[in-house]
Parts: sequence; C-alpha cells; structure tokens
Amino acid sequence: MPNIFSINDFGEAKNELQKDYFDRHTPVIQCISEARPGEILRIRVRVGTEYAHPHEADHYIALIQLWNRETLLAEARFYHGVLCNQPGNVEVEFTVVMPQVSMNLTALSYCTKHGLWRSQPHAVKVGTEK
Amino acid sequence: MPNIFSINDFGEAKNELQKDYFDRHTPVIQCISEARPGEILRIRVRVGTEYAHPHEADHYIALIQLWNRETLLAEARFYHGVLCNQPGNVEVEFTVVMPQVSMNLTALSYCTKHGLWRSQPHAVKVGTEK
Amino acid sequence: MPNIFSINDFGEAKNELQKDYFDRHTPVIQCISEARPGEILRIRVRVGTEYAHPHEADHYIALIQLWNRETLLAEARFYHGVLCNQPGNVEVEFTVVMPQVSMNLTALSYCTKHGLWRSQPHAVKVGTEK
Amino acid sequence: MPNIFSINDFGEAKNELQKDYFDRHTPVIQCISEARPGEILRIRVRVGTEYAHPHEADHYIALIQLWNRETLLAEARFYHGVLCNQPGNVEVEFTVVMPQVSMNLTALSYCTKHGLWRSQPHAVKVGTEK
Repeated sequence: MPNIFSINDFGEAKNELQKDYFDRHTPVIQCISEARPGEILRIRVRVGTEYAHPHEADHYIALIQLWNRETLLAEARFYHGVLCNQPGNVEVEFTVVMPQVSMNLTALSYCTKHGLWRSQPHAVKVGTEK
Repeated sequence: MPNIFSINDFGEAKNELQKDYFDRHTPVIQCISEARPGEILRIRVRVGTEYAHPHEADHYIALIQLWNRETLLAEARFYHGVLCNQPGNVEVEFTVVMPQVSMNLTALSYCTKHGLWRSQPHAVKVGTEK
Repeated sequence: MPNIFSINDFGEAKNELQKDYFDRHTPVIQCISEARPGEILRIRVRVGTEYAHPHEADHYIALIQLWNRETLLAEARFYHGVLCNQPGNVEVEFTVVMPQVSMNLTALSYCTKHGLWRSQPHAVKVGTEK
Repeated sequence: MPNIFSINDFGEAKNELQKDYFDRHTPVIQCISEARPGEILRIRVRVGTEYAHPHEADHYIALIQLWNRETLLAEARFYHGVLCNQPGNVEVEFTVVMPQVSMNLTALSYCTKHGLWRSQPHAVKVGTEK
C-alpha cells in the first residue's frame, strides 16, 4: 500500500534540506478548536508553512482530502496551472457544519512525485456557548 | 449530453418557487476583478445566495469546478456529511496565482438531483499597480 | 463557461490534421444498446479511435465522466504516469446496473490543453428478454 | 488520520458476519503478473468477491484508487445511482501501460460508512518475451 508520510515519522529534521522537505509536503489544518452544533466552520488546509513546494507539470500537489476520523468530508483537486508554475503553498478553505459530537480532523495531501502526506490531527470539541 | 443550466437560460423568475430553485443551484464567484501577475488570489465559490439547498444523502451539491476559459483550475468535492444534513450553501475558497494574462473564470456546480449549473463569468483583468 | 467541444460542431474534417485532432479528443462509448432492468452493463469509454493522444506531464487526458442524461454516474481520473508518457488512448470500463427505464448516456473527456469534449449520445433501451 | 483497513489486520474471520464484512469492503486487483515494457495492461479492481455491498444513498462505495507504490495512477468515483440502489460489487477496469520497471500495485476503496480499505498488493514483473 502507499505509505502515508507524516512529519512525525521522521523525527527531528537534521538540517535545512530535511526541514524544507518535510515542511513543504505536510498539510496543516487551520480551524477553531471548539464550536456549537450547527455552527458554520471555515476549515483551511495549507500545504507547507515556511517552505514553498514546486508547482510544475510533473511535480505538484494534486490533491487535498479532509477527513473526520474515518469519514471523508471533502476533497480539493488542483491542476498544474493553479499556481502558474511558480513554487508556492497550495491551499483550500472548506465550509463545514459542526455536528452534534466532537470532530477529529486530519488532512491528507498528495504530491505527484513524493506521495501521500498527512497532517497533525486537529480536534474540534463541542462548545455550549458562543 | 448533460445540459448545463444557467440562471440566464430561464429568463426572469416568475415566482418565489422559481427564484428559490434558480438561486440555490447557481454557483457564484466572489473574487477581485483586477490583479497583478503573480499575485495570490482568493477565489470563493458559493452555491446559492439567499436560498439554501438541501444537503441530504440522496440530494446534495456534490461538486464545484473552477474554470479559466477552457482550462480546469481546481475542483472541490463534497460528501453528504459536510453540512450535517441541514440545508445550507456549499462553498469553497481556492487560492490561485494570477497569470500574465487576464482570466475569465466560470464555476460549475453539480446537484445530485438537478444536474449541472454554471455561474456568471467573472473576469480578472491584469492590473499594473497594487 | 467552458465550451464543450464535439466532433459534430466542426463539420467534416478537411484534412488529416483535423481528423487527428477531432478523433483523439473525442470519447467513444462502447456498450450494448438494450438491456433488462437489473442487468449488469459493462460500459467502456475510450478517448480516440484511430489516432493516439499525447500523455505527457503538461498535456494529457485527465478526466472521463459518464452521464445518464443530467445525472453523473461515474468518473475516472488519470494521472500522467498511466500511459508512461507515450501517446495512446486513455480508456476505462465502468460497471453499471440497468435501471427500470432507458438510459441516454454521454461521456465527457477533459484534455489539459484542449479542454472539454463530449461523445455522441448512446441510448440503452429497456429490453424484455435476454 | 483515517485508518486504512485491510482484511489482514483482522486475522481469520470468526463467523459468517465477519467474512461478509471483510469481503464486501476489500478491493481485489485482477491483472496479469508479468508484462513487457510498453505493453497495455487491463487492470480490474472489484470491491468484494463473494459478498455484495449495499449501494444506497447514504451507504455506498464511493471511490477506488489504483496506486503503484507511492504513485497514484488512476481513480474512479461512483455516484449512488450506479448500481440502482441494489447491493452489488462496484468495479472498474483501468488501462495502464507497463513501465520499464516492475510495478507493485495496491487499490484503495472508500465506503461512505465504513471508511478506507486496501487490497492485497499485486506485483507485475517485467517480462522479456510475450
């Protein structure tokens, strides 16, 4: 099966090259951590924080998936024109309605050369007040 | 071939029911209209403005595509859990780098019961200054 | 909106170059024309018949959709490794159960350089006997 | 992250119920095991062998992915109409050109209620003669 790489699997990055490699492939979830059932959440997923990933015809981030535990919520697919062939950070913002119970979100991203990568999990607890 | 419906094809909505039906299926592009080459654009696509669409297992908005003329830039796919079975407006925000030439954007959305719908075109001109 | 090209829109091909261009972008549906409700159908969609399409990183057939009238039945997505960079004919075979009523199938294909193309419609009538 | 279930992870099925559950979620790759570089391969992926999976609006196999090691080759997406709401075995046949080196294929399938499942790996060696 395809490996699912995670920055955690590699231990501490030993040098700039490793930091770059790990960072620019890892999706990061940006979202609040507590919400009331029915509340509309903006969930942003960005691949890479400090380091940019190439976006060329034969090497680009093609896919982001947003999971809540074992359930696929949404996917975004990018074609190679989306960043005009310049290095950058692919990102997408999904709009999701908070369910009655907590969510445990994970994002996956797929690089056409370096495979499948996963984010840190991001919990959204059920809040009782705004 | 599948029809691609557009609010324009129907003429003026004759009543509340038609307004609702047209509005809640039509994707709307929210984006600035002028940008410098290389500038990072946030392009939001929302299905429906004033009226909410169901989001049930057998009737929901499953797909949004963002086109620049004949070129597919990005797609978002939604599963039926994304709005927790309550009516609402599916939306997604893509991040796109402005090319050297103008863009003419269109969004398509797909409803699992009522087919394929298109937005009004949205032009983004090349600007010379910020 | 993106044009949806069809070999019919161009009239008769005037020369070899046009024949090649039209043929290698046009999806063709291969399927029986009559089936009993509940029968399992193999529906093959092939892009191009006599002419091969490039399959390079920045120019390939990325997507085939199979529609029954206004309803999307299935989609296949191809990455540029699938034909090993050699020209060829992308194809996929879907398995579909025949409904209680006739189907009117259309396939769409998307070329990353030359946009969206549609097949001839293919009707599958309801048959009463095997 | 989402678990990726495999029939191997569960050990021997203890009863009919478990056999059914494991079997109807597991994708199976059908393909020859040796091919010459450039040869056209038909790779069939079928979810379930002896047991049928439901195909209802809120419970169906939505996605099959075909991987060669860490590289995504192709994906098929099914909408809930494809099997007309009757239990069955979703399947798809991809056409892939054999590369210069061996392939190690895996298929993933996604059930909208029971998550992501993987097939046994299937090796295709490079053959020298037809």
